[in-house]
Amino acid sequence: MMRRDRLFLAVTLIAIFSADLYFILLPKLRSLGRGSRQFCSCGPNNLTLPGQGGLATPQLSNWTSASPRVGITADPADGGSKLGRLFAHPLYNIQIPAVGPEESLLQVEQLMEYYRRKVSRWERHMKLYSEAAAVSNITVPEREVTFDPDASWLKFHLGISRYALYSRDDPAIPQLLKDMEGMIVISADYTQDEKALKGACDCTQVVKPSGHHLKLALKMRNFAKAMFKPMRQQRDEETPADFFYFVDFQRHNAEIAAFHLDRILDFRRVPPVAGRLVNLTGEVLRATHNEDLRAVFFTSPANNTCFFAKCLYVCKTEYAVCGNPDLLEGSLSAYLPGLSIAPRISIPNPWIRSYTFTGREEWEVNPFYCDTIRQLYPYNSGNRLLNIIDMSIFDFLIGNMDRHHYEIFTKFGDEGFLLHLDNARGFGKHSQDEMSILAPLSQCCMIKRSTLLRLQLLAQPEFRLSDLMRESLEGDPLRPILTEPHLLALDRRLQKILRVVQRCVRRLGKNEVITKDFFKSTAIPQTATEMKKTR
Amino acid sequence: MMRRDRLFLAVTLIAIFSADLYFILLPKLRSLGRGSRQFCSCGPNNLTLPGQGGLATPQLSNWTSASPRVGITADPADGGSKLGRLFAHPLYNIQIPAVGPEESLLQVEQLMEYYRRKVSRWERHMKLYSEAAAVSNITVPEREVTFDPDASWLKFHLGISRYALYSRDDPAIPQLLKDMEGMIVISADYTQDEKALKGACDCTQVVKPSGHHLKLALKMRNFAKAMFKPMRQQRDEETPADFFYFVDFQRHNAEIAAFHLDRILDFRRVPPVAGRLVNLTGEVLRATHNEDLRAVFFTSPANNTCFFAKCLYVCKTEYAVCGNPDLLEGSLSAYLPGLSIAPRISIPNPWIRSYTFTGREEWEVNPFYCDTIRQLYPYNSGNRLLNIIDMSIFDFLIGNMDRHHYEIFTKFGDEGFLLHLDNARGFGKHSQDEMSILAPLSQCCMIKRSTLLRLQLLAQPEFRLSDLMRESLEGDPLRPILTEPHLLALDRRLQKILRVVQRCVRRLGKNEVITKDFFKSTAIPQTATEMKKTR
Repeated sequence: MMRRDRLFLAVTLIAIFSADLYFILLPKLRSLGRGSRQFCSCGPNNLTLPGQGGLATPQLSNWTSASPRVGITADPADGGSKLGRLFAHPLYNIQIPAVGPEESLLQVEQLMEYYRRKVSRWERHMKLYSEAAAVSNITVPEREVTFDPDASWLKFHLGISRYALYSRDDPAIPQLLKDMEGMIVISADYTQDEKALKGACDCTQVVKPSGHHLKLALKMRNFAKAMFKPMRQQRDEETPADFFYFVDFQRHNAEIAAFHLDRILDFRRVPPVAGRLVNLTGEVLRATHNEDLRAVFFTSPANNTCFFAKCLYVCKTEYAVCGNPDLLEGSLSAYLPGLSIAPRISIPNPWIRSYTFTGREEWEVNPFYCDTIRQLYPYNSGNRLLNIIDMSIFDFLIGNMDRHHYEIFTKFGDEGFLLHLDNARGFGKHSQDEMSILAPLSQCCMIKRSTLLRLQLLAQPEFRLSDLMRESLEGDPLRPILTEPHLLALDRRLQKILRVVQRCVRRLGKNEVITKDFFKSTAIPQTATEMKKTR
Repeated sequence: MMRRDRLFLAVTLIAIFSADLYFILLPKLRSLGRGSRQFCSCGPNNLTLPGQGGLATPQLSNWTSASPRVGITADPADGGSKLGRLFAHPLYNIQIPAVGPEESLLQVEQLMEYYRRKVSRWERHMKLYSEAAAVSNITVPEREVTFDPDASWLKFHLGISRYALYSRDDPAIPQLLKDMEGMIVISADYTQDEKALKGACDCTQVVKPSGHHLKLALKMRNFAKAMFKPMRQQRDEETPADFFYFVDFQRHNAEIAAFHLDRILDFRRVPPVAGRLVNLTGEVLRATHNEDLRAVFFTSPANNTCFFAKCLYVCKTEYAVCGNPDLLEGSLSAYLPGLSIAPRISIPNPWIRSYTFTGREEWEVNPFYCDTIRQLYPYNSGNRLLNIIDMSIFDFLIGNMDRHHYEIFTKFGDEGFLLHLDNARGFGKHSQDEMSILAPLSQCCMIKRSTLLRLQLLAQPEFRLSDLMRESLEGDPLRPILTEPHLLALDRRLQKILRVVQRCVRRLGKNEVITKDFFKSTAIPQTATEMKKTR
């Protein structure tokens, strides 16, 4: 009996000690070891690329292994910010030429004039409305607007250039995010698309999905405008396997996460998006003058404020969204400048999917589809096709199969960047990597050098994409925005993108696949030098 | 160290021993004790009620305590069948007068003639169809029908009397359930309601709910017809708190469970329902001649066969149902005789709810509503109001708030029993007991004596409703039909019904509340005697 006791105790203690050793001591020892080997101290102004075999000169054969060749930095938990180090990295500090008037989307005077007109029209309308209300003995809540020439949304609009929606260090962007999170809503209405529909049910139009019908335009006190998409799905819910991409829910958290990812990829083609707890009664129902919108509000059996979609669901509430009792999570996407001062065109994606149950588009069946596209205007010159490939990489990372159109600002012509609007169908399934989204990359076998370099950087442990996203999304008031499986899927998908490029390079050679960006090399001496090295 | 070892070991052993004692030995000892005290051996022909203060003579003050006053029988796990004992109980063996021709819904000759006509019409149609197909060089799967004068569905139809849909010991009912589970489907089509809709979207008709649009009529080889309602919800999903009753999903398992509950309550007003795994491709898509129905089938991205609803969802697949890849659970409810030979009328429930977001019906605001109803034809005489109260008890138990109409066979006039059709909106929330469903009972303060006696019996541990339901539902091929929380909710709700009756009795006295059933006392001597005793 005594011996057995001892044996039992010994076994237990050994088990506990082994677990302790494996899970607690070893990781500590490892991180200590790492700390001592840390040598990369890229300060925010340090533009020199790391030396011996740095990130900018990857060994193609070693791309996907993500080995810690460059200095491993400390964990964010240790106080450092991976995101800060990323944005301080030379790849994120390539200088672009000074933006001249022709390279800006808008001129200050033009935008101010537009803003002034809008404010005075609002005030005129409000006066008439109040007078009418007074006649009917109704008290209308006072909704004062402020004309603020320093408003962050104005700065955002003024910062849009032919290169991107905002520059990397523009302080207006964090300010705009903050403003959207907290500013007073003075008006809520359907978006222009919704108004165009007028509640009609065009069942031949399968592309127009249900989620659209619940988005609203909110106007803030300083005339900032944002598109509100309400929460319709829990963070841990996955899109059912039987859903077609065109009937999937729109996810407010996907809109938020897509903005952060686009910024981390340095594309800057997604307008700023912030999460916000919106008061459906105070900030939407009481803030709208649209009777149609008022009519879709109701109180649920659980005494929550809800609203449902026009059109298909005009008499259905199953798929309404409800506050608790009034507060509902949603994404607020900053509006782009109005189409009257900054016209855009919407162009069908050459890799558009068939929005039917059985149809297949040519690209799905013809492996040489890209050879056709390459010869067609506007994909036959400039970097338009490369931009489409960037977009497919972005969509593959977020898992968005619903990119049927893209938009560009007409001012910048065919060389303008592509806007990555409407990303709410991303982040539906973390467990599936839909390789067909990468068709533009895998069929055309080309990629911008600058994009590839950043992707390689984000595949390194010290700049691991999931870590950067986790950190970046921590800044949103609705955190956590993505579940861990979705964050980890980003790393896995990034590896798959790099493997597709690798296969292309093996088949066609680097010179064919990795395409020089159309930067003026004089303006980016250091990086241009580095680029030559990588060849 | 040694002492600590021993202490540790001692504590562990004591813990294990206590657990063993509590969970294994004690229950065994208890069941042994029970076994020795078992004295109720009600055989199927034993009509004498148990003696000393038996079930038929409850003490009102002790109603809801469910104390084991009558013999506690062994657990079904020990080999006994609670359900068998229930159906052998005198309360379930009250003799009704022999059913004469006027008390039967249908006559044999009439039904046989109808059946023969249907079969020959089908054969004629099939011949034409095959010829047309042959001309177009299409091979049509042979769908032979059998004329079977012994078919269980015929016996079910012939067994419908003025008292109930079937008699307690009718062997045709289990046979019909078995047939529905396994018989070859020769045809699938929309139901008549669906055809009447013709895919129109009448948005003013909020009552017509989405789930309706997915139900189908299946015809079996021997011409048995059943209504198929596909699975749309997992067993453990609860109706969200924000859903109105009129937009809740229809649940196939609720249809199945409602049939079993109705039989256990001895109402026998729900047509037989069986679960079945239906092959959507083989038994629906290939079995239909209706082009509209064919048109709503599609293959999902996960390669499953799916179909979606007409009308509101004509271009939506979010809310389609899908097989895996072809098989889908569903409920099959036996059809009642056709309206041409057994007409029924549909009558609005006096306690109908408002099918709008904000509306309230009179019964919801007027506590004396029943006094009005009592004076109105047909509720002013006979047992029509008592039947409404029975129905409200049934609906309260299943949690069905959607009883907007009820149907009766016109042949039996105002004294006919109420059909409890369409129970798929039951069993939505196990955690909520919707007391408003009991309004007919709580406002009118009356109940049939026979109903009350059975409810009291089912509140006894040896006939516990949840145990009976668990056992009864075990017979369905789609078991488990209800989750444990739903089963246990039945016991809790039963107690609440009994408490409502108890309060009525306290207020108005037994004679006012507990109403004699309209049985001829000569035909049921023993139970009539017992009933007098309970007074």
